[in-house]
Amino acid sequence: MSILMEMGKKAKMAAVKLAVLPSPKKNEALCHAAEALLAAEGAILSANKEDVAAAVTLGIKGAFIDRLTLTKERLEEMADGLRQVAALNDPVGEVLSMKTLENGLVIGQKRVPMGVIGIIFEARPNVTADAFGLCLKAGSAVILRGGKEAFRTNQRVIAVFRQALEEMGLPADIVQVVPDTSRESANEMMRLNGYLDVLIPRGGAGLIQSVVQNSTVPVIETGVGNCHIFVDETADLEKAAAIVLNAKTQRPGVCNACESLLVHEAIAEQFLPVVGEALQQKEVEIRGDEAVCRQISGSVPATQEDWATEYADYILSARVVKNLDEAISHIRKYSTGHSEAILTENYTNAQRFLNEVDAAAVYVNASTRFTDGGQFGFGAEIGISTQKLHARGPMGLKELTTTKYIIYGNGQIRK
Amino acid sequence: MSILMEMGKKAKMAAVKLAVLPSPKKNEALCHAAEALLAAEGAILSANKEDVAAAVTLGIKGAFIDRLTLTKERLEEMADGLRQVAALNDPVGEVLSMKTLENGLVIGQKRVPMGVIGIIFEARPNVTADAFGLCLKAGSAVILRGGKEAFRTNQRVIAVFRQALEEMGLPADIVQVVPDTSRESANEMMRLNGYLDVLIPRGGAGLIQSVVQNSTVPVIETGVGNCHIFVDETADLEKAAAIVLNAKTQRPGVCNACESLLVHEAIAEQFLPVVGEALQQKEVEIRGDEAVCRQISGSVPATQEDWATEYADYILSARVVKNLDEAISHIRKYSTGHSEAILTENYTNAQRFLNEVDAAAVYVNASTRFTDGGQFGFGAEIGISTQKLHARGPMGLKELTTTKYIIYGNGQIRK
Repeated sequence: MSILMEMGKKAKMAAVKLAVLPSPKKNEALCHAAEALLAAEGAILSANKEDVAAAVTLGIKGAFIDRLTLTKERLEEMADGLRQVAALNDPVGEVLSMKTLENGLVIGQKRVPMGVIGIIFEARPNVTADAFGLCLKAGSAVILRGGKEAFRTNQRVIAVFRQALEEMGLPADIVQVVPDTSRESANEMMRLNGYLDVLIPRGGAGLIQSVVQNSTVPVIETGVGNCHIFVDETADLEKAAAIVLNAKTQRPGVCNACESLLVHEAIAEQFLPVVGEALQQKEVEIRGDEAVCRQISGSVPATQEDWATEYADYILSARVVKNLDEAISHIRKYSTGHSEAILTENYTNAQRFLNEVDAAAVYVNASTRFTDGGQFGFGAEIGISTQKLHARGPMGLKELTTTKYIIYGNGQIRK
Repeated sequence: MSILMEMGKKAKMAAVKLAVLPSPKKNEALCHAAEALLAAEGAILSANKEDVAAAVTLGIKGAFIDRLTLTKERLEEMADGLRQVAALNDPVGEVLSMKTLENGLVIGQKRVPMGVIGIIFEARPNVTADAFGLCLKAGSAVILRGGKEAFRTNQRVIAVFRQALEEMGLPADIVQVVPDTSRESANEMMRLNGYLDVLIPRGGAGLIQSVVQNSTVPVIETGVGNCHIFVDETADLEKAAAIVLNAKTQRPGVCNACESLLVHEAIAEQFLPVVGEALQQKEVEIRGDEAVCRQISGSVPATQEDWATEYADYILSARVVKNLDEAISHIRKYSTGHSEAILTENYTNAQRFLNEVDAAAVYVNASTRFTDGGQFGFGAEIGISTQKLHARGPMGLKELTTTKYIIYGNGQIRK
């Protein structure tokens, strides 16, 4: 039996106990884990310092190092996150519907834990605390496999959580971390059917595609967002400029940021110079079609590839379209099914866009940046699903559970 | 572009039109397809006759030939099935919840079609009509790939449906059938990401495992059922015998039939001879542990393998257990997560079984044979999911849909 299969076996055993644990016990454990995290500050930050130093030695730079680095403040945010999850409603045990059939069978659909959840992620060590907290509250054991750059930090953080669980009389195996960061261990994790009930990749497009292509365990695909905003003929142009600016620049590195702007030809001449200037003031590079390049000085011609690109950066592709139909058909061609918005005062066009655009979140007159578990009121999220099975859009506690039918009979047999 | 990718592309285009089609139009199309099916009786039965003759020539026998064979009556059942689906409520368009956030955004979760559904199935040609009807009503295009033995029949039936769709002014590509039955086409279908939103295998354990192992498209795993009945110390033994007999023999070839009987030791001596005799009268072979073999003459010793086997036949494994804990732990070890039942008059044991046994359907005092979309009141089912993602248990129209968030704003930007 391989190391991963043994971990899977232990996780299943821990999950059986966790599945029937009352909410208050889970909440106590979460709060205790938050305390333990803060108490272990020295050990965790020192492990993290080693990780960061090793990454720097390898020539890794900038934003990556920032994501990798833990500070006292970030550790406090992680602990706060655990306490916030403790404060959320427990989805487990809810019966979604219960009815009596003609033969007297009483049948209900009950929300129950998933069992064992696997999470493969990259350099952000805060994912360990997020994932641990959400999975525990949702009643599932979790096996984490982080990126090699955060290896020492992740090991340390998980060791703290495991000890905290034991101190609360719970199985430490509710959370485990894969003890190496080889490609083999990732591949084995992706084929751990019978032990893992679901696998969630969190990271860049490369990681996600690798998991989708190689996993035989059911996967929830998260994250890639080539999000569009279509500014219709009747849009309130002042609001529209503010929304486009917000969606592109408020945090350009995330998946719900706007990557592509479509503008109705009737207002292109009026709107493009205004929005172009505002964007350029924030140092956004605009890659436009011919019409856009005519209206926004300093913009550069877009290639075919630009329409399909999630820049996650201060770059925006932009195109002038004839009408709503052309906008919808452009979006249908290039959308990754994450978040799409129309800005319009036309009722029929708003409804058509909501109906005809197929994405996890479809907006009228608002920034795409709202596609987020916290913003949607879920309290916390494990990621944003861009697939259609099981969960679509931000995934909170509920999306980390499954259901089972419970049936009360009094001797019924099938005729 | 391969044939399958071209089919995928056509299916996506048809799905876009189908997604916004009003319910009455879909229902008319279903009823017209039912008419067309009956009108084509001659052509379909003659194609089926060729399939059956070819199978017989290959030495195929018995139950397989029965499943493959269409008759006038079975064709009428297929047509009736389509009309019944027309009569079901349309799940598409329902908004599951709608609320106003503090910032004024109005956010709802709307049920929408899946897009394009792939179905890989074996010898039953009636699956073509079932799958076509359910997918159409749920607003999704479908690509079907049937077993080679039913090739001529499936081609004929789908041709009839495609023509019926065109006659109703709808795209024929709402339903397509893969034009060959090679292993290559199956494998390509399993990797048709970007075209297929979900793949559902319908058939035996071999087919299902092959799809789970090889598919990169999200899969809903259906069907394998190693279902247990635990007869507790306090069970009403008369009802218990009737339930065990029903669950094993009413239709032993299906996935919700009972495969394994667990009996509390306190009533083993009283219960086993009675149920044993009743089962043996129905020619059920009993494979028992030592205690069972002592109580039921004519039973044979069970091997380790028996506990894990879905016989789908007149065979039952049986074991005496010390108590509820031993029963639950046996089920935890060997269950395929389909349907599990406890027969008991003890309130606490009933609740514990419902809580602690992890399966798609968990019963108290009823036959496992009720796990079925029709029996659960869904009207029809596309299969029974034994995985935890997306759908668990019988899948009706609702389980063939997904959701999207729709958000109404008035200029909101994220702070």
